[in-house]
Amino acid sequence: MQTEFSIDTNGPGLIEFTARIADWLPPRDGLLTVFVRHTSCSLLIQENADPDVQSDLLGWLVRLVPPADSASMRFITHRAEGVDDMPAHIKAAHLPVSLQIPVQDGRMRLGTWQGVFLFEHREAPHTRHVALHFAPDPVE
Amino acid sequence: MQTEFSIDTNGPGLIEFTARIADWLPPRDGLLTVFVRHTSCSLLIQENADPDVQSDLLGWLVRLVPPADSASMRFITHRAEGVDDMPAHIKAAHLPVSLQIPVQDGRMRLGTWQGVFLFEHREAPHTRHVALHFAPDPVE
Amino acid sequence: MQTEFSIDTNGPGLIEFTARIADWLPPRDGLLTVFVRHTSCSLLIQENADPDVQSDLLGWLVRLVPPADSASMRFITHRAEGVDDMPAHIKAAHLPVSLQIPVQDGRMRLGTWQGVFLFEHREAPHTRHVALHFAPDPVE
Repeated sequence: MQTEFSIDTNGPGLIEFTARIADWLPPRDGLLTVFVRHTSCSLLIQENADPDVQSDLLGWLVRLVPPADSASMRFITHRAEGVDDMPAHIKAAHLPVSLQIPVQDGRMRLGTWQGVFLFEHREAPHTRHVALHFAPDPVE
Repeated sequence: MQTEFSIDTNGPGLIEFTARIADWLPPRDGLLTVFVRHTSCSLLIQENADPDVQSDLLGWLVRLVPPADSASMRFITHRAEGVDDMPAHIKAAHLPVSLQIPVQDGRMRLGTWQGVFLFEHREAPHTRHVALHFAPDPVE
Repeated sequence: MQTEFSIDTNGPGLIEFTARIADWLPPRDGLLTVFVRHTSCSLLIQENADPDVQSDLLGWLVRLVPPADSASMRFITHRAEGVDDMPAHIKAAHLPVSLQIPVQDGRMRLGTWQGVFLFEHREAPHTRHVALHFAPDPVE
């Protein structure tokens, strides 16, 4: 059982889509896989209660991996699409491209504070494609 | 086939639970998923032979993501539970929330030096919940 | 359905093996898991079009986690196999040990620019072992 979501982004930041996944899942036990089909954005499971957590994660990441015109990033060669191009690939290398979540009776086994996010790393608006796969547990 | 483990932690560090998983697995081929239901601790597969590797990983991580009262962390807004609160979320974003390991005849296909760990990032003691899922290969 | 690939490495860098995986997959729907059985190299899905992306990722990683004889790495205790030993474990902790990719009719649901790589972190040549697992979707 597979599908694909499109998610529109408008600059760096986290976009939650937990509810959309929940709506898609059948009322069965199994394993959910979420896979992002890009190399300059990420998936992330993180706290979805206090929005400050999301802005702090963004603040952290831009400090860890600054734009390619920063002094510490002079070594960067790949600059085809601007100063946020290669840093986006680096951020995407450091964060998940796929997530797996056990499912019971159609409910993801997320903790109380866990939400599922797309994490956009590029400045320009993008339409991102996320592949979903649900493997139902065998009935034995 | 699913279960949940509880793991008690007592400050930042790695707690191995490879053997506990091995005991739970049925004598079949399949795919194991381990999923941690929290946003301030992580799962990790790393070397379990020399304990110095574990203390060095901890030493690295506290230098990469120092407490929120450090000069470099002044940008942090989310401080609800103290100076180790948001840094724990950042560490959790950088390390796995779920692990998948192929299984043959009930044995995880781990390499010689690989162990499965919970990585606690918070100072206060916590009881952590880890969901396990085993999908047996179909008999064809 | 499981197998194991051997991949020879010759110093730090990315080695693509997307085509080898594609050749192994059966013409079915399902979920692919790729798992590296080591603690000093990684798996990574990243851009495979411009080779500069790969060299920039390597340049980034050696700056983030420099050799153990660097001033910032004096805290390192585990030095059994030289100055690239513990930094390789740290890099391996920050990058994936396993990847999951949905498969449709034998084709990985990769995006246009995504390739599957082994990322070697050690200086000395190694033969690396990668376990593959394919779980076909049930025919219902």
